[in-house]
Amino acid sequence: MKPLNIGLIGYGFMGRTHSNGYKRVNDFFPELEHRPVLKAVCGRNAESVQAFADQWQYESIETDWRKLIGRDDIDAVDICTPNNSHAEIAIAAAQAGKMILCEKPLALNPAEGEKMIEAVEKAGVVNTVWYNYRRVPAVTMAKQLVDQGRLGRIFHYRANFLQDWTISEDVPQGGAALWRLDVAAAGSGVTGDLLAHCIDTAIWLNGSITNVSAMTETFVKERMHTETGKMEPVGIDDACAFLCRFENGSLGLFESTRYARGHKALYTFEINGEKGSLRWDLHDLHRLEWFDHADEGRLRGWRSIHVTDGEHPYMDKWWVPGLQIGYEHTFVHQVADFLKGIESGQKVHPTFRDAQETQRVCDAVLTSASEKSWQTV
Amino acid sequence: MKPLNIGLIGYGFMGRTHSNGYKRVNDFFPELEHRPVLKAVCGRNAESVQAFADQWQYESIETDWRKLIGRDDIDAVDICTPNNSHAEIAIAAAQAGKMILCEKPLALNPAEGEKMIEAVEKAGVVNTVWYNYRRVPAVTMAKQLVDQGRLGRIFHYRANFLQDWTISEDVPQGGAALWRLDVAAAGSGVTGDLLAHCIDTAIWLNGSITNVSAMTETFVKERMHTETGKMEPVGIDDACAFLCRFENGSLGLFESTRYARGHKALYTFEINGEKGSLRWDLHDLHRLEWFDHADEGRLRGWRSIHVTDGEHPYMDKWWVPGLQIGYEHTFVHQVADFLKGIESGQKVHPTFRDAQETQRVCDAVLTSASEKSWQTV
Amino acid sequence: MKPLNIGLIGYGFMGRTHSNGYKRVNDFFPELEHRPVLKAVCGRNAESVQAFADQWQYESIETDWRKLIGRDDIDAVDICTPNNSHAEIAIAAAQAGKMILCEKPLALNPAEGEKMIEAVEKAGVVNTVWYNYRRVPAVTMAKQLVDQGRLGRIFHYRANFLQDWTISEDVPQGGAALWRLDVAAAGSGVTGDLLAHCIDTAIWLNGSITNVSAMTETFVKERMHTETGKMEPVGIDDACAFLCRFENGSLGLFESTRYARGHKALYTFEINGEKGSLRWDLHDLHRLEWFDHADEGRLRGWRSIHVTDGEHPYMDKWWVPGLQIGYEHTFVHQVADFLKGIESGQKVHPTFRDAQETQRVCDAVLTSASEKSWQTV
Amino acid sequence: MKPLNIGLIGYGFMGRTHSNGYKRVNDFFPELEHRPVLKAVCGRNAESVQAFADQWQYESIETDWRKLIGRDDIDAVDICTPNNSHAEIAIAAAQAGKMILCEKPLALNPAEGEKMIEAVEKAGVVNTVWYNYRRVPAVTMAKQLVDQGRLGRIFHYRANFLQDWTISEDVPQGGAALWRLDVAAAGSGVTGDLLAHCIDTAIWLNGSITNVSAMTETFVKERMHTETGKMEPVGIDDACAFLCRFENGSLGLFESTRYARGHKALYTFEINGEKGSLRWDLHDLHRLEWFDHADEGRLRGWRSIHVTDGEHPYMDKWWVPGLQIGYEHTFVHQVADFLKGIESGQKVHPTFRDAQETQRVCDAVLTSASEKSWQTV
Repeated sequence: MKPLNIGLIGYGFMGRTHSNGYKRVNDFFPELEHRPVLKAVCGRNAESVQAFADQWQYESIETDWRKLIGRDDIDAVDICTPNNSHAEIAIAAAQAGKMILCEKPLALNPAEGEKMIEAVEKAGVVNTVWYNYRRVPAVTMAKQLVDQGRLGRIFHYRANFLQDWTISEDVPQGGAALWRLDVAAAGSGVTGDLLAHCIDTAIWLNGSITNVSAMTETFVKERMHTETGKMEPVGIDDACAFLCRFENGSLGLFESTRYARGHKALYTFEINGEKGSLRWDLHDLHRLEWFDHADEGRLRGWRSIHVTDGEHPYMDKWWVPGLQIGYEHTFVHQVADFLKGIESGQKVHPTFRDAQETQRVCDAVLTSASEKSWQTV
Repeated sequence: MKPLNIGLIGYGFMGRTHSNGYKRVNDFFPELEHRPVLKAVCGRNAESVQAFADQWQYESIETDWRKLIGRDDIDAVDICTPNNSHAEIAIAAAQAGKMILCEKPLALNPAEGEKMIEAVEKAGVVNTVWYNYRRVPAVTMAKQLVDQGRLGRIFHYRANFLQDWTISEDVPQGGAALWRLDVAAAGSGVTGDLLAHCIDTAIWLNGSITNVSAMTETFVKERMHTETGKMEPVGIDDACAFLCRFENGSLGLFESTRYARGHKALYTFEINGEKGSLRWDLHDLHRLEWFDHADEGRLRGWRSIHVTDGEHPYMDKWWVPGLQIGYEHTFVHQVADFLKGIESGQKVHPTFRDAQETQRVCDAVLTSASEKSWQTV
Repeated sequence: MKPLNIGLIGYGFMGRTHSNGYKRVNDFFPELEHRPVLKAVCGRNAESVQAFADQWQYESIETDWRKLIGRDDIDAVDICTPNNSHAEIAIAAAQAGKMILCEKPLALNPAEGEKMIEAVEKAGVVNTVWYNYRRVPAVTMAKQLVDQGRLGRIFHYRANFLQDWTISEDVPQGGAALWRLDVAAAGSGVTGDLLAHCIDTAIWLNGSITNVSAMTETFVKERMHTETGKMEPVGIDDACAFLCRFENGSLGLFESTRYARGHKALYTFEINGEKGSLRWDLHDLHRLEWFDHADEGRLRGWRSIHVTDGEHPYMDKWWVPGLQIGYEHTFVHQVADFLKGIESGQKVHPTFRDAQETQRVCDAVLTSASEKSWQTV
Repeated sequence: MKPLNIGLIGYGFMGRTHSNGYKRVNDFFPELEHRPVLKAVCGRNAESVQAFADQWQYESIETDWRKLIGRDDIDAVDICTPNNSHAEIAIAAAQAGKMILCEKPLALNPAEGEKMIEAVEKAGVVNTVWYNYRRVPAVTMAKQLVDQGRLGRIFHYRANFLQDWTISEDVPQGGAALWRLDVAAAGSGVTGDLLAHCIDTAIWLNGSITNVSAMTETFVKERMHTETGKMEPVGIDDACAFLCRFENGSLGLFESTRYARGHKALYTFEINGEKGSLRWDLHDLHRLEWFDHADEGRLRGWRSIHVTDGEHPYMDKWWVPGLQIGYEHTFVHQVADFLKGIESGQKVHPTFRDAQETQRVCDAVLTSASEKSWQTV
């Protein structure tokens, strides 16, 4: 078994999900030739990064990401920092010849994304972006059904990502925990954070989005900033919805918000095709709902498929039928596919270039909302 | 259109459901040759029976059921009185040559039932019992699937009928509204009231029950009796559950209670066969859940069939796909089938003889519970 | 009991639902002082209108709606014809001093609607539009909760009306059965047929819509016309989706289509407020889902309320808890409220004026879709 | 961090779930003072046990469990072998002074269980049994609600564990993969395998079971035995259902089968109390359904609680609200609680003595089924 030395930059929520992916992958994917090694983790605060390293058994720490990238004993750099540093770090890592696993969204905007693509392609380094929901087994099976033509001509695609955790005006913005509410760090609100997931899945399943009409809203106009200690304007979008058309002629409808009382992380999508329809919901992520028009007329109905059998994507690696896996497994799957990509020489999707398409849709969405007009992607 | 003159005895909850059935059937079943005519309604209290007659447009009232049965202008007698008067009225009606529609359960016990069967068969009069749930479209479709062999060999049958309306000790027993809690009037508690429905459907769908092991409980031991005004012992079963075996080798499990907090009238059944399974739930009565093992392996799942299409049983009579009907329609369907039976000379199931089988199972269940031993039906 | 003589114009699907409402209302609403009398039904084809009259027990027929309106023995005119004749008939009926019950949508466009309002208000006649879904008990309860402030400040409103019955290219357009697919008769496709329902409910629950951005699509461009016998262009919208803003600052998202494979008549809406959220679905219309942020934190969850108790709106009129009613009951309720309105002198909502607001939103939606720009309502 | 050296005996399905628990616990429970060390794994086939050791990173292997128990560098013995060897191994391990984690069911029968208890209590060693479902967060929260008296007096408890994987007659019995179908290795069929889980949870939540009436069935009478290569009689129960009474006066109903077509591992339970009711389902294990009679009458409904918040049991250790964990996490939780028990000196439930109560109920169930009579536990 060959070691693959990982250098993790950032150690927040995503640092945990990725670390868990690296540590677990070989227990469940014994066919892999590589074993990820938690070589180093990097953060600005030495004390807390050391605590993280101790908990997760990283071999060493760094407090300057440039030093981590410069280390010879690092094979792959994993970028888990806030969005506004993705580009700089990724470009430097590419120049240092490291493989790169970058948290989503790729960048603050398409211009940054373009430079990142240029850097990794010029350096010829393996690159991937953590749009993890592609690797929920039920979502992967949805992709198989679409690719097999089981849905026929597609008429409609709709997706939501609904949360409710920022309704209180007392939630502050900024800092390690809440940088997602700070436009400087995050670039946008729900668009980059949540809709980006919906868009990535949509493009994967249904092809390119050609034009959009969007609206955004910021319900709470000012929040205490944890760095300044003062009330500051909120620059992010609290909610965003958009209409769109796909290249294949189907219509799309997307919505995301952090003000949908009662929903924690309700990412859902539905595709309606001539021959069949599919529905999925992150709150019960192991289920895929499938309607097959080829069924006998009087017995047609939405099937609730509990995607936990050995013949379902990824599920031969886990337990037995009926026993579900969870959110974190999507990261284990992505690590497995990453390692298989290295071993086979195949690209590991979504690559930076794949993720850039989502970036461009997000950008068109934000522009459409601010200009109140349809935008071509 | 030929008139069919109805004489209704009893005008409580069931009097309303039946009257509604008579009044609506011709609007939706135009192929019928008969039109029920609400000729007379009978009850002991002249004032309140007159109010009922006025509301529902009955042509006349009676206060003595023997007089109603004696009238020449009555073709069919509908018995909606408490259980302890079914036998006497039905036997008299049969002797008077009337068609009989009797509310369930057929009788207080199998001995009474036997005499009723003897009377109607000797008189040669049309007879039926209002086990209305057979005529929920989804339940009727379940019957079709079973009869077509779509489930293959049956392994399991389970049914529940769960309510929660008698949990409070302040609910009295007896009188027009609450005779179901008075053992003298009702004969038993949930067994005759609720399990009888479950058993009728089960026998219809899965054949005879051969032996049972039951337990019953009366959680509230005394209740105010509305007739005596005093606290009196409660003689009915508040809850009843039983194990059983069917003649076809399958295992059965039944439960009913009025102490299942949160359930209003949750009648559910499920059948598991070698090739497929079925599930139904009165709280969403227009849905049939169907699992077909013949489906492609990875895509197997329970289908939620919204039984509202024109090709579904009875549904060509009503609205358009997706628009549901409700509880009361089961009675309209039973009236329609009753009239078609008269017109075709076919028996209208369940006949008294059919209903007697349920009676015998109920009797075995109550005996088993009191003797704490398996009983052969 | 005073008679209220009904003259029904049109006898298709809606003619049946309304007739059923008139015939049943007094059985279940005994407090009413009026009894609707099915005096006359009008249609162009004498033979088939007579068959309808026979089935539903109308006393007489007419083949010219002007004659029906001219009859002295008609108190109220019920307009169930295709949309392109609503205005002409309603204006004539108003001038004849008749009460008017008009099927939705009010008119082909706001200009027609304006004239209709002028006519009924000038004549001072009672007028109402059959936006029946307001009177689903669960929907009425949603209104009560909103009005009581239980949701607090509203952030989001979303509604869908999804069907799948026109996916086949072989479905023709036009004629008595399929005028909804013929733009000349219907004015629009899903916008006037389905979204109009969603919009009416939305305005009722959440107040005025101020501006919209929409897209429409016609997936099947040509269909055989049943009147010409030739392939003709399809002029209606097969699908329509729009973003909007409400006057109260909340964001709206609406979608309707007849190309959502697997959905029969899936009308759903959801409202997210600061204190709580509501969800409803026509396919299980007796359920209201309610999320209350005031619940103890760890025990918060969406409650599935089976709206079948005596204390729920309208449900004291029907059966007992757990026993559901269906689609058709909304029309019975509307008749009951119509009669109560007459008896009390109160307006019966939605009046023509109420319905005109929906008309204006529909118009803005269609304009937005064709001009590809935001439109102010 | 102190090491706790684990010796695992058996390396099948349960060997994997336990190993995963040991390897992950410290990543998510940083407060623990101990770190499990995968010191040795034992199995009879050296080659395959070595493969398992390599995959899961065990430091060494043994092929004789007595040698493993004899090793000084083993602190805790984990027994994952078929049921018929639990007693012998556990007693030996106790005599060797090892902590013991035994897979469920405790033993083949109560007599064996008694000896095991005697051994561990005499030796004074920490002991626990892997009834893992207690530690599903939703189930743990159910326990909290019961203990807080939120349900009031309990009337009903019902539980099912339904599977469908042995319907085909072609499934053989015996051997490493299918010892659960071989009565010699398993002791019983669904009773010990599945109902034992239901009973353990039931006793934990609702107290002792006092008497039972059961029935069992073996649908497929002969299966090829993988060891003899011949068709052999099937000695296990394919299905088992029983009625029971609890010490607290409530009624119980339990059923398990491997012949319920369409169900993979559908473990469900429901408790109905005077004040509230609870429901849970393994197929969506992160949800707890809760009905609270204290809610305002018209708004009462079953709440679907997505048990994924930081304030829910164990969930502060994992991700963020809405992101679910899965089956395997129950074992991580049990390891965490085991370590906390060691650190605090508290017993780790269920202990052998706790598990013996389930054993005795299983025994009474099997006796009742074979003698066709009620049995006292």
